[in-house]
Amino acid sequence: MVDTPSKTVVARMSRYLRQLERAVSEGRNTISSKILGEMLSVSDSQVRKDLARLEPVGHPGVGFRCDELIAAIRRFLGVVDTWPIVVVGCGNLGQALIGYKGFSARGFKIAGAFDISRDLIGKSVHGVTIQDFADLRAEIADKNVQLAALCVPTDRAQVTAEDLVKSGIGGILNFAPVFLSLPGNVHVSYVDLTIEMEQLVFAVVQNQNRSL
Amino acid sequence: MVDTPSKTVVARMSRYLRQLERAVSEGRNTISSKILGEMLSVSDSQVRKDLARLEPVGHPGVGFRCDELIAAIRRFLGVVDTWPIVVVGCGNLGQALIGYKGFSARGFKIAGAFDISRDLIGKSVHGVTIQDFADLRAEIADKNVQLAALCVPTDRAQVTAEDLVKSGIGGILNFAPVFLSLPGNVHVSYVDLTIEMEQLVFAVVQNQNRSL
Repeated sequence: MVDTPSKTVVARMSRYLRQLERAVSEGRNTISSKILGEMLSVSDSQVRKDLARLEPVGHPGVGFRCDELIAAIRRFLGVVDTWPIVVVGCGNLGQALIGYKGFSARGFKIAGAFDISRDLIGKSVHGVTIQDFADLRAEIADKNVQLAALCVPTDRAQVTAEDLVKSGIGGILNFAPVFLSLPGNVHVSYVDLTIEMEQLVFAVVQNQNRSL
Repeated sequence: MVDTPSKTVVARMSRYLRQLERAVSEGRNTISSKILGEMLSVSDSQVRKDLARLEPVGHPGVGFRCDELIAAIRRFLGVVDTWPIVVVGCGNLGQALIGYKGFSARGFKIAGAFDISRDLIGKSVHGVTIQDFADLRAEIADKNVQLAALCVPTDRAQVTAEDLVKSGIGGILNFAPVFLSLPGNVHVSYVDLTIEMEQLVFAVVQNQNRSL
């Protein structure tokens, strides 16, 4: 019985996956845990420990076959089939997300984009037509969508998230810099760019202090 | 002597700051560590431990004055003055960042936006005119810019980041889903939306398995 992996482990699995996909695109067929670790600044032993959570994929003397390891990590993460996502809130950020190539390359498909603004409803962005938010519930039930990227203004985030949950959404990628209070079975990932920036500032300032 | 705070501590300080700013905007003058913790799903004792890293700010029987706590966290993080940022790569995502209201509200100012595309150079986005990337070095030296948001395509990220470092940038917020190999004194924060999405998928799948 393997313990439930922490968020940090799951995030590392995604990072291994990214790096393996890149290695394959550069013509690499096999890889060792050591090289994979060096690419990501993770220790060899940590990489081995993480990959031991997967079904057995290593080949003695060869290391890992990249395609086998990619398939095993995708099964671990659950990103085997294509996952439909809806984008909710189609301002600058929402429109950028609709065009975000990373999603389609990695098994996520924009299944719909929604807004409440009359100026945006009906507009086509990267081939996706923005729909009325009032039509969201029927649309996501129809397409069995469970994931939403929430790109509405901060003061609309909580109420919109509640609507999403009522409509059957189980996972929200929240771009509004506010914490959402939702039922425990709903998962929220927060993307707050100011938090990232403040961490950079802290690191840069510490660095300056060291060099004084 | 206080130990150097971990990235997790620094990130929590940013989250406290976000929540305090919100509390103030809602008319709150004082707050207890318990309430602050509840807002962010952090334990009371963890909040107290974190805030003990700041200069003394609590008032017995009153808790914390929000304005004092905000000022102390901002000093801790180093976000007291306005930090200029450049946006490098002005496709959809770069343009969304230029308009990202979170930055200006929290002490970050877009000091310039750069691209190599003739179609974009000269274009005005949210009042910022996109400049030729070739002019970046002079511009950031002139304005003493140390932070950059990197929004170029994946295959341009490493080479562009190296140019940024040569130009004097000390902290990079990287949106390209690729790890950057840079000198140790340069700090990189990664924003990879597929990693966030995969973590959501993992949580949603685990949830489904539990309910079967």
